[in-house]
Amino acid sequence: MKIENIKVTDPFWTKYRTIVKDKLIPYQWSVINDDKAITIEKENAGAYDAVKKSHAVENLKIAAGLAKGHFYGFWFQDSDVYKWLEAVAYTLRYAPDKRLEGIANNVIDIISQAQEPDGYLDTYIQIEAPEHKFTHVSLSHELYVMGHYIEAGVAYYQTTHYRKALDIAKKMGDCIDANFGPEDKKMHGYPGHPEIELALAKLADETGDVKYTRVAKYMIDQRGTRPNNFFEEQLKNVQAKKIEDPYYSDASQSDPEPSYFQNDVPVREMTSVEGHAVRMVYLLTGMAHVARQTGDESLFAASQRLWKDVTRRQMYITGGVGSSAPKGEAFTFDYDLPNDTAYAETCASCAMSFFAKQMRDTYQDADYGDVLERELYNGTISGMSLDGKHFFYVNPLEVDPKASKEDPMKSHVKVQRAAWFGCACCPPNLARLVASVDQYIYTVTEDAIYADQFIGNETTFDNGLTIEQTGNFPWSGNVQFAITAKKTVKTTVAIRIPAWSRDHYAVTVNGQPLAVELDQGYLRIKRNWSGTTQIAVTLDMSVQMVHADPRVKDDVGKTAIQRGPVVYTLEQADNGCQLQANTLPVTPAFTVTPDDQTFAVPIVKITTTALHTDAATPIGNLYGTPATTLTHKKQLTFIPYFAWANRTPGEMMVWVHQM
Amino acid sequence: MKIENIKVTDPFWTKYRTIVKDKLIPYQWSVINDDKAITIEKENAGAYDAVKKSHAVENLKIAAGLAKGHFYGFWFQDSDVYKWLEAVAYTLRYAPDKRLEGIANNVIDIISQAQEPDGYLDTYIQIEAPEHKFTHVSLSHELYVMGHYIEAGVAYYQTTHYRKALDIAKKMGDCIDANFGPEDKKMHGYPGHPEIELALAKLADETGDVKYTRVAKYMIDQRGTRPNNFFEEQLKNVQAKKIEDPYYSDASQSDPEPSYFQNDVPVREMTSVEGHAVRMVYLLTGMAHVARQTGDESLFAASQRLWKDVTRRQMYITGGVGSSAPKGEAFTFDYDLPNDTAYAETCASCAMSFFAKQMRDTYQDADYGDVLERELYNGTISGMSLDGKHFFYVNPLEVDPKASKEDPMKSHVKVQRAAWFGCACCPPNLARLVASVDQYIYTVTEDAIYADQFIGNETTFDNGLTIEQTGNFPWSGNVQFAITAKKTVKTTVAIRIPAWSRDHYAVTVNGQPLAVELDQGYLRIKRNWSGTTQIAVTLDMSVQMVHADPRVKDDVGKTAIQRGPVVYTLEQADNGCQLQANTLPVTPAFTVTPDDQTFAVPIVKITTTALHTDAATPIGNLYGTPATTLTHKKQLTFIPYFAWANRTPGEMMVWVHQM
Repeated sequence: MKIENIKVTDPFWTKYRTIVKDKLIPYQWSVINDDKAITIEKENAGAYDAVKKSHAVENLKIAAGLAKGHFYGFWFQDSDVYKWLEAVAYTLRYAPDKRLEGIANNVIDIISQAQEPDGYLDTYIQIEAPEHKFTHVSLSHELYVMGHYIEAGVAYYQTTHYRKALDIAKKMGDCIDANFGPEDKKMHGYPGHPEIELALAKLADETGDVKYTRVAKYMIDQRGTRPNNFFEEQLKNVQAKKIEDPYYSDASQSDPEPSYFQNDVPVREMTSVEGHAVRMVYLLTGMAHVARQTGDESLFAASQRLWKDVTRRQMYITGGVGSSAPKGEAFTFDYDLPNDTAYAETCASCAMSFFAKQMRDTYQDADYGDVLERELYNGTISGMSLDGKHFFYVNPLEVDPKASKEDPMKSHVKVQRAAWFGCACCPPNLARLVASVDQYIYTVTEDAIYADQFIGNETTFDNGLTIEQTGNFPWSGNVQFAITAKKTVKTTVAIRIPAWSRDHYAVTVNGQPLAVELDQGYLRIKRNWSGTTQIAVTLDMSVQMVHADPRVKDDVGKTAIQRGPVVYTLEQADNGCQLQANTLPVTPAFTVTPDDQTFAVPIVKITTTALHTDAATPIGNLYGTPATTLTHKKQLTFIPYFAWANRTPGEMMVWVHQM
Repeated sequence: MKIENIKVTDPFWTKYRTIVKDKLIPYQWSVINDDKAITIEKENAGAYDAVKKSHAVENLKIAAGLAKGHFYGFWFQDSDVYKWLEAVAYTLRYAPDKRLEGIANNVIDIISQAQEPDGYLDTYIQIEAPEHKFTHVSLSHELYVMGHYIEAGVAYYQTTHYRKALDIAKKMGDCIDANFGPEDKKMHGYPGHPEIELALAKLADETGDVKYTRVAKYMIDQRGTRPNNFFEEQLKNVQAKKIEDPYYSDASQSDPEPSYFQNDVPVREMTSVEGHAVRMVYLLTGMAHVARQTGDESLFAASQRLWKDVTRRQMYITGGVGSSAPKGEAFTFDYDLPNDTAYAETCASCAMSFFAKQMRDTYQDADYGDVLERELYNGTISGMSLDGKHFFYVNPLEVDPKASKEDPMKSHVKVQRAAWFGCACCPPNLARLVASVDQYIYTVTEDAIYADQFIGNETTFDNGLTIEQTGNFPWSGNVQFAITAKKTVKTTVAIRIPAWSRDHYAVTVNGQPLAVELDQGYLRIKRNWSGTTQIAVTLDMSVQMVHADPRVKDDVGKTAIQRGPVVYTLEQADNGCQLQANTLPVTPAFTVTPDDQTFAVPIVKITTTALHTDAATPIGNLYGTPATTLTHKKQLTFIPYFAWANRTPGEMMVWVHQM
């Protein structure tokens, strides 16, 4: 079974997709073209060095012989253009735009001219150091940027059928296949930053050519094996300063452990997620995809084991992963999830979404949809302001402006989103995720349609079924599915009941209550569909107080407020400062109020009464016995986590003390 | 009134003073002489670089022309010898030792030969860079090391009357007076690391020569004033690499703010403690001392304001100060007292003791004795193992060995004391404090004897009174004072009632209950003393649950256990791991048990029953609603904070969750 056509009608995501289409895409286009009209704000850019310029399109023009000059930017600057292009590919599906398509076609033409005859394309190497082609893929981002192009080219071809877009991608794939593999004449290598694996798997899906999967699998299989001559020799080249890596020298990890690159053990032997979070999760995404394509059970088992590890031991409640800045935007150790020094890069949450999709496409378990939902409504979109023009790289769960300013350990934790970054990986990553959110709604197998996400849509399937999903998720738990069959269709429609609703939910079919046991989190309705069938799902939208595993030190004695999939937070703009001095009672009374005034998007806010502990006097005693403590009742307002930092900067706190 | 003779008889401090005399002093002597028999353990030395050698005495010999070679070590290596000498001076008072005195005299002879004719002595400059004498006192430690000698020389002279010891100090003082001051021909400078100010004040006390106070006051007055030509020019010299500072280049603060040196505003305008904690508190110690010597009220007011600031806003419950490692062993901002990344250097707690004494000697308020007591029984002695041979530089309030190993932000937080440090400031600082603890027991004024600390002693005063203080403090709250007057003496004996006992205490005089109002925390007994009067004080030794000001984020929802002056802690050796998963009930029942088996010193341990939250399954859900939480009752054992890390390394936690 296949999806023939899908149209997102969802109010929540339509807002976001409109922001991406109308604001983010043009804004990014101006940035990567160094439009003089764009003013990049320097404030709050901090460690990420707000750029003076991007130069990303210019680099491609120089490589294409269309302009003269030097390369500028990070080694992976090309990927800014490719991720923009991929986002464009998705937006054109829901908002056709001939002018934009023309711009994109022109970019593809430049890319095509920049590409070398053998398919290679990396503007840094081509412009500045052609002799270093593929001599240091352990640290260079050559395979990373080509991977991003391949993703973009495939997506753009799928939307527009512009042949050249796919041809460039295929030539890149051919180039990589020609240079990497087990054969003696090829390099027995793999990149320091995984990405090419997942891209080649996508290219194989599109073209049906298994050689792309084969080389992707080769790189996955080879990674972490010993002897590790290729990788070590390449690393030595860089460390001997034969090659300068502007990114490498900028990284906080000046001498990374092999685990930073996921290169300490073969992937099938890995027992926990390690190292740079985005690298790790991109690798996992490729692993899951290749495992499905090849039917490699041990590879899927490794993906599944590491899925459990990351989601059960190293993921914030917002879906954020990678808790340590100084360790290199990296995973640390089990249950180490500090809220106020979190890294939780926007890219890492996007990567978790990609990983979840690949796991989901391989194996029927609502867990993948649950985690994906957590990412979609929390840790990904928190990376963008509601004006679509300001971005977070780091998504903390607790912020104190004083600490961000004065504590070097928290200097990466920003209180305001920045206008752009020197290392601009996050904004276009989020753009392509939001623009392609339709791809995450359904999973189809031979005999079933799985409704994974409650994102309103009208979708036709190639078996003649049409599903119209409506509702006001995530604010309302009432979701309707109108399923229409032109002729009688025998199939299963399975609806994910989210983990947060599994104790309380109701489903009716044409008004009649349906009572079926959930199967791996799905409610399966198997029948001969004819005419229009109305399925109404009512999810549990009560305010939930979530507690963390007690091994998560920073969350002990605290609760996080969640309603539906949305994690809530306290912000100073509503609640004043000293947020930590608020303590919720054991059974707080919550009031749920729709609010379309406060932010550029409608939200639902939650209010309750807490106990606020007053600081005694300006200079009282720092330590005393409890009798000296004064408390008063205080109303607290919780807003969705994703909406924080859209008002006056101040404190923010997800995990709140509870009696 | 004056103290004629004081002898410490206290069981607790006699143990510590015996360790210092019998173990620490000989051990340090071996270290600073590079005794081949000493093996410096490399483990756990971490950022402090366990030394290959000390070379401290050898540097002096080279400067004295008694040996040949190059300087080795930090710029302030000389101070290791001087602090050792100062500790020796104090131990000789309670444990006369002709052999040790001979060794010390020999060292003084070497120092005397190393001293230049003008009184200058800094072996680094003399051996390696004589042209840089006094050209970079903003960053060099020339005045710092001379300050430490002056302290040592004065102390040693007071004990032994070895004239040379004082003569060297006076010559140094003369040298500084000749080079620094308001006169045109002198340098209008002051050091980057305060210390000389407090030392010159001590020299003035001993010699009665006010010029030493005058130059100390000049440096204090000049600090932070603008234009700041002297300091800035000297800094520029170093930054232009004209002068290499091995300490400066090692410091995490590679380009320190003026506040790092307490050099941003004049001291009388400072509203909060700033910068490197030891520097700040040494400065304050000198300020308070000079204020008393000169009667400078505005200077004393500044000292008092900053005393309030540090003790009310920036001090851990253990007395530790300076909460940030990456900021440069520094103060951060009000109420920023993270437990698991604390710096709380042993030297800083020693410095707080010195500051408290100077404040106490100037002004009658029990607050100074309260804080001093907190330092003495907690944050200072925690810096030394109970074998006297292992030391902490950093004194955290919460430790997780996994985090210390894997989290770069916690790499300074050690789980075991190290055998020595490359930067060996802390061990000898603690040694001199412990060896001189008798100086902190009484403060005498014209008309009163203030008993500030409950440290058992026999003391004669020059008015004919003798006080014999006995007890088993800090384990017992029963303290006896036998006050004997040979002839009738009219005076006041004032006993500090500690803040932790002010709600519950009892005092009898010759068995008769005494009911008087406390005056600034003191119980004043003014009478004509004759014969022997027995005063019995009973302090509140109940187990107290202390809460922090709610502005201290990390302590919200937690309690610290304190009994008498001793802060308690949980350690993995008694309680297993996952200490954070223990929650105390609102009103726990505590059992108090003397224990002379567990450690090399007798302690009192405290047990109670808590609720332990179990982690559900090895891979359960990281986040869930409370109903999924399993708890069981668990007995917890608290030990004194100072005794932690004397057994198998593991977790430690002072602040414990409470319902």
